[in-house]
Amino acid sequence: MSIQKRIRDYGVKIGKLETGHYNSITDVDGISVGHVTLSENGTQTGVTAILPHQGNIFKEKVIASSHVINGFGKTMGTLQINELGTLESPIILTNTLSIGTAADALIGYMLDQNPEIGRTTGTINPVVCECNDMLLNDVRARFITKEHVIHALNNTSKEVKEGSVGAGTGMLCYSLKGGIGTSSRLMKMEHGTYTMGVFVLANFGILSDLKVNGKAVGEELRDSILQSHEEKDKGSIIVIVSTDLPVSERQLNRVIKRTITGLSRTGSIITNGSGEVVIGFSTATKIPHNKISSYMSVPMIHEEDIDLAFRAVGDATEEAVLNSLVTATHVIGRDRNERPAFKDLVNEYNIELT
Amino acid sequence: MSIQKRIRDYGVKIGKLETGHYNSITDVDGISVGHVTLSENGTQTGVTAILPHQGNIFKEKVIASSHVINGFGKTMGTLQINELGTLESPIILTNTLSIGTAADALIGYMLDQNPEIGRTTGTINPVVCECNDMLLNDVRARFITKEHVIHALNNTSKEVKEGSVGAGTGMLCYSLKGGIGTSSRLMKMEHGTYTMGVFVLANFGILSDLKVNGKAVGEELRDSILQSHEEKDKGSIIVIVSTDLPVSERQLNRVIKRTITGLSRTGSIITNGSGEVVIGFSTATKIPHNKISSYMSVPMIHEEDIDLAFRAVGDATEEAVLNSLVTATHVIGRDRNERPAFKDLVNEYNIELT
Amino acid sequence: MSIQKRIRDYGVKIGKLETGHYNSITDVDGISVGHVTLSENGTQTGVTAILPHQGNIFKEKVIASSHVINGFGKTMGTLQINELGTLESPIILTNTLSIGTAADALIGYMLDQNPEIGRTTGTINPVVCECNDMLLNDVRARFITKEHVIHALNNTSKEVKEGSVGAGTGMLCYSLKGGIGTSSRLMKMEHGTYTMGVFVLANFGILSDLKVNGKAVGEELRDSILQSHEEKDKGSIIVIVSTDLPVSERQLNRVIKRTITGLSRTGSIITNGSGEVVIGFSTATKIPHNKISSYMSVPMIHEEDIDLAFRAVGDATEEAVLNSLVTATHVIGRDRNERPAFKDLVNEYNIELT
Amino acid sequence: MSIQKRIRDYGVKIGKLETGHYNSITDVDGISVGHVTLSENGTQTGVTAILPHQGNIFKEKVIASSHVINGFGKTMGTLQINELGTLESPIILTNTLSIGTAADALIGYMLDQNPEIGRTTGTINPVVCECNDMLLNDVRARFITKEHVIHALNNTSKEVKEGSVGAGTGMLCYSLKGGIGTSSRLMKMEHGTYTMGVFVLANFGILSDLKVNGKAVGEELRDSILQSHEEKDKGSIIVIVSTDLPVSERQLNRVIKRTITGLSRTGSIITNGSGEVVIGFSTATKIPHNKISSYMSVPMIHEEDIDLAFRAVGDATEEAVLNSLVTATHVIGRDRNERPAFKDLVNEYNIELT
Repeated sequence: MSIQKRIRDYGVKIGKLETGHYNSITDVDGISVGHVTLSENGTQTGVTAILPHQGNIFKEKVIASSHVINGFGKTMGTLQINELGTLESPIILTNTLSIGTAADALIGYMLDQNPEIGRTTGTINPVVCECNDMLLNDVRARFITKEHVIHALNNTSKEVKEGSVGAGTGMLCYSLKGGIGTSSRLMKMEHGTYTMGVFVLANFGILSDLKVNGKAVGEELRDSILQSHEEKDKGSIIVIVSTDLPVSERQLNRVIKRTITGLSRTGSIITNGSGEVVIGFSTATKIPHNKISSYMSVPMIHEEDIDLAFRAVGDATEEAVLNSLVTATHVIGRDRNERPAFKDLVNEYNIELT
Repeated sequence: MSIQKRIRDYGVKIGKLETGHYNSITDVDGISVGHVTLSENGTQTGVTAILPHQGNIFKEKVIASSHVINGFGKTMGTLQINELGTLESPIILTNTLSIGTAADALIGYMLDQNPEIGRTTGTINPVVCECNDMLLNDVRARFITKEHVIHALNNTSKEVKEGSVGAGTGMLCYSLKGGIGTSSRLMKMEHGTYTMGVFVLANFGILSDLKVNGKAVGEELRDSILQSHEEKDKGSIIVIVSTDLPVSERQLNRVIKRTITGLSRTGSIITNGSGEVVIGFSTATKIPHNKISSYMSVPMIHEEDIDLAFRAVGDATEEAVLNSLVTATHVIGRDRNERPAFKDLVNEYNIELT
Repeated sequence: MSIQKRIRDYGVKIGKLETGHYNSITDVDGISVGHVTLSENGTQTGVTAILPHQGNIFKEKVIASSHVINGFGKTMGTLQINELGTLESPIILTNTLSIGTAADALIGYMLDQNPEIGRTTGTINPVVCECNDMLLNDVRARFITKEHVIHALNNTSKEVKEGSVGAGTGMLCYSLKGGIGTSSRLMKMEHGTYTMGVFVLANFGILSDLKVNGKAVGEELRDSILQSHEEKDKGSIIVIVSTDLPVSERQLNRVIKRTITGLSRTGSIITNGSGEVVIGFSTATKIPHNKISSYMSVPMIHEEDIDLAFRAVGDATEEAVLNSLVTATHVIGRDRNERPAFKDLVNEYNIELT
Repeated sequence: MSIQKRIRDYGVKIGKLETGHYNSITDVDGISVGHVTLSENGTQTGVTAILPHQGNIFKEKVIASSHVINGFGKTMGTLQINELGTLESPIILTNTLSIGTAADALIGYMLDQNPEIGRTTGTINPVVCECNDMLLNDVRARFITKEHVIHALNNTSKEVKEGSVGAGTGMLCYSLKGGIGTSSRLMKMEHGTYTMGVFVLANFGILSDLKVNGKAVGEELRDSILQSHEEKDKGSIIVIVSTDLPVSERQLNRVIKRTITGLSRTGSIITNGSGEVVIGFSTATKIPHNKISSYMSVPMIHEEDIDLAFRAVGDATEEAVLNSLVTATHVIGRDRNERPAFKDLVNEYNIELT
């Protein structure tokens, strides 16, 4: 993560809390992220895989919750997450029309790891999230194959590349090029220091709404470039929240709902089109797949501790979106459609971000 | 509870599980119930109070959840129960138009017990449930006073009177007289034996739909009495579920949703009018009001243990409804409106219940 | 539908309302159903496709809603249904591990019909439902191909085969062979006669819980066959509700929630495992995909009319489940696992169903 | 509304859309607002009443929806709003411990207007919202009487006083004095120009988080006043949204969920304590209480029109909060607790708001 210039490198500091070491979702112990990027002419798409921990996720589930900000989307797997409060597979992100392929690949990956599925135990809940990259990518061609998905799953690391990579390859953000972004915050409580990690696949917003830490940079930019890249916003974003804070499913749900505060501060009005979905998990507790003979004992913060998590998740979400925007590169895609890079415009027009 | 003839005394046995000692919600340790009954001419109403435990409920909250089967009702307090997963007051049941008075009385009761409320700590979430007893009771007169509510709160016991008492005084059930009913089940698991208690304020249904343990007793009765007591169903029931099973708020929510299986088996089609609301709590964990310096450790069953609770809650709900019906007495109320007692009709027409 | 002996042919009549012509979901004008059945040795699975109308569903969406009875399932597409209140694709039902393939096939089918998707307009929300047929079917083998799905979509009719066909080929019901079932009810209102159609993929329940119109047939059967086919219930059912009643999304949601009354009356306790999901749609209104310049005018019943729909949907669900059970045939599948047919047992042991 | 200096009078202009005539919720035809203010020493509280239209609201209901941002609150009436999609009473706002009294008064008011309630038709769903004013007000004393509530209901007008009035008398906002605020936006569509009105009872936030149109005014102020008024945030706000846009309940729900974007832009992180509840209604359709013999025809915008409503509601919410803050006056209340007025600090320390 040393190569890419991120929003903090422009002097923009979001909120009052410290970041983790990488300022990334991977600051939460055990998390890793892998990308497969397809970027050539009208093929501008990819896959991103997130592993919640490095063990067998099916056998050791993590406490999880999902929240729909706007349901004009096709994310799979939230029914079971909400019913059972657990995540039992890695999370795959890709383009909207490739969710079937991604789900099938993820199912295969889980079957390979768990020969008892469909024999002595039940089935697996694949979690697949998506945004629509149709402007830059020939989304109808469905370029993503099962092999791409497996490759992303098998090649994860703690160093997360951002911008026009993986599932973010063809995505937009505030009418410019967008994609992958991440950020983290430390939460110092009496009983320990915890990490809140946020990861986004950003594909929403119109330029004039963009705000950088409160500054109306979008309006300024739009005036500078003397033209509008403002088509109708399709408003899509996937937010993955990870933490090692000990929380119940209910508490986790309260936390992930607060991602909207950060999104809103970047200027989002949450438009009608496409989907805005948040999936969160806590690695503090592993729930065994197989029944145990006793009851479990689940650690959970007192509700009075939770405000710090609310602040952390909002700030990290705001910064993750800005990171996706500022790291993305200029892309020319399908039918010569293109989207400029925010960083190029900032340089060209000498935009002050602070 | 020795005086009233209950559905089991007619040979009707619901399901496969054993009941608790009282076959009552009060089989769960700590629960007590109090009634105030106003029954004279057009005054056919009352108040019922349920204490989730005998300590200071505000300072030691219980894990709780609510579920709306049909929201055509005015139950208060569910927003906070669902957000925080706790119950912090007794539960009051009364008639629909007395909820304001009941809430005000319950607030006063909680303020008296907790002088720090509104001074050094926040406020209190009063939980008040209701059904509409307008046929037999002059509900517009709002007979319930704060003193009635306080009296019910201060005079609870483990022996629960059923039928035309307390909040059930003026209620109907399957076009006959209804009201209060309760039942319980034991749940034997590897790690202990737990109790599921259900308490209903039943005020729903039309006669021809009534089924007693699968038997179409309602149709038979309607034919016997050669007339229809079938007005439009207003479909209202309040179900209170209590257990000592260690469950998370999410698990508890799953459990209380299953009350509908028992309701359905008595013949309910969940009509449009009035409200059907379930409130559940588990006494297995006490959540302290005041922040603690560490995190908490909450006991919670493995999900594979939960089917027994699903069965228990459905069966106890079915039996509680039948108990409310079979214990209720003939009432003549407002404007000489009346509703016969099921038990009188069963005797008169020699209806076989098994 | 003339060939199969259905539950009414055994003298069992559920409820007070008349059925439609076919006593099938296809009694609602425009609906058609297609099956692909794979039944040979350890291959006991299939695909079922339901078309909500015979036009272009993407361009003329129908008002829709979904309801999760139990979310231990992988049904796809409910997020968008609930956000936008519309269904824009056929519904595919198949086995749990084939949902990726089914989604991909359905996406392809929709792309073929709508060349503007991913070009001048957004994407498509594929709706895929599933149950787990692992006992009789080698579910890990993922036998379903895209071609199977397309074939089911292209070969629908108004005559619906029930039992061990299509997605129901390998499914169980009350520990016996289950699968596909359907039923309908007429709703006579002042402003017209409407149809309520219900279609189920039944794969839930344990034998001793089975009730046929209130009669404890399951207990009797279990005693007769002197052995228990009672393994742990995985509790899965998909219910598709269709009607031509003019309802808003909210009203439709209220209606489809009442399917649980019918399920409960057959004996379901809604166990933990697998998913119970309801998807409903009304053909009374077509919502155009493309923006129109005026506002729309949507027909909607007065709430006081809705009880008849509540009764209809519960009764039709109860009968659809019983139809799935009584039409299913004896199947020997994976590893010589087998499930007897209810109808064979009824004959063999002279079980009275009325 | 001519007397009070509002946020626009300081040169702050939120968003791109025009306001209505009053820049108030009362720009929506038919809406009126009434306050009763109790402000003397430790009595700093009040009541606010909002009438959705000037006819009989019970007999002509308006389409309505509610949304819980944070459920640590005691708002009453949302169950029925969400089930039936209608509002059938005025909305009362007051302090947390007076909700029982307010509900009882509102019930009485409705009974007086509708003699058939509890006789020939069912009951009434009173909608009462609250925030906790315990810092400035002796909330335990429960000063609000039924007469106060009736007086507020009987003395509404289109001119809305803001700041430390009515239910806002004792409320805080960003650690300063808060209370009542309102704003509106015009929405020009092909088929007409509509109004979005927002009304807030603001009682949330800590000073350093306050942002005025993106500017970190809170941090600046906190540094200027050289001390922290930052106690723990109790995070409470009630937002009432009104519009004449023709929307279904589902669409209205989508709209009112977007109030959070405006709240977030003022700096809210939606803390744990107290409740954040939104209630919205559309006056475009009146739903008759009494059953009609035909079905209804409900006007509803095409979903592609909705983004303008999303933008309008966010902007109006942001401005309503700022109006509550900038109009509030310095209050010294219970135990000499006090909260400064934002406008006084802005003057004293020459804070630039633009």
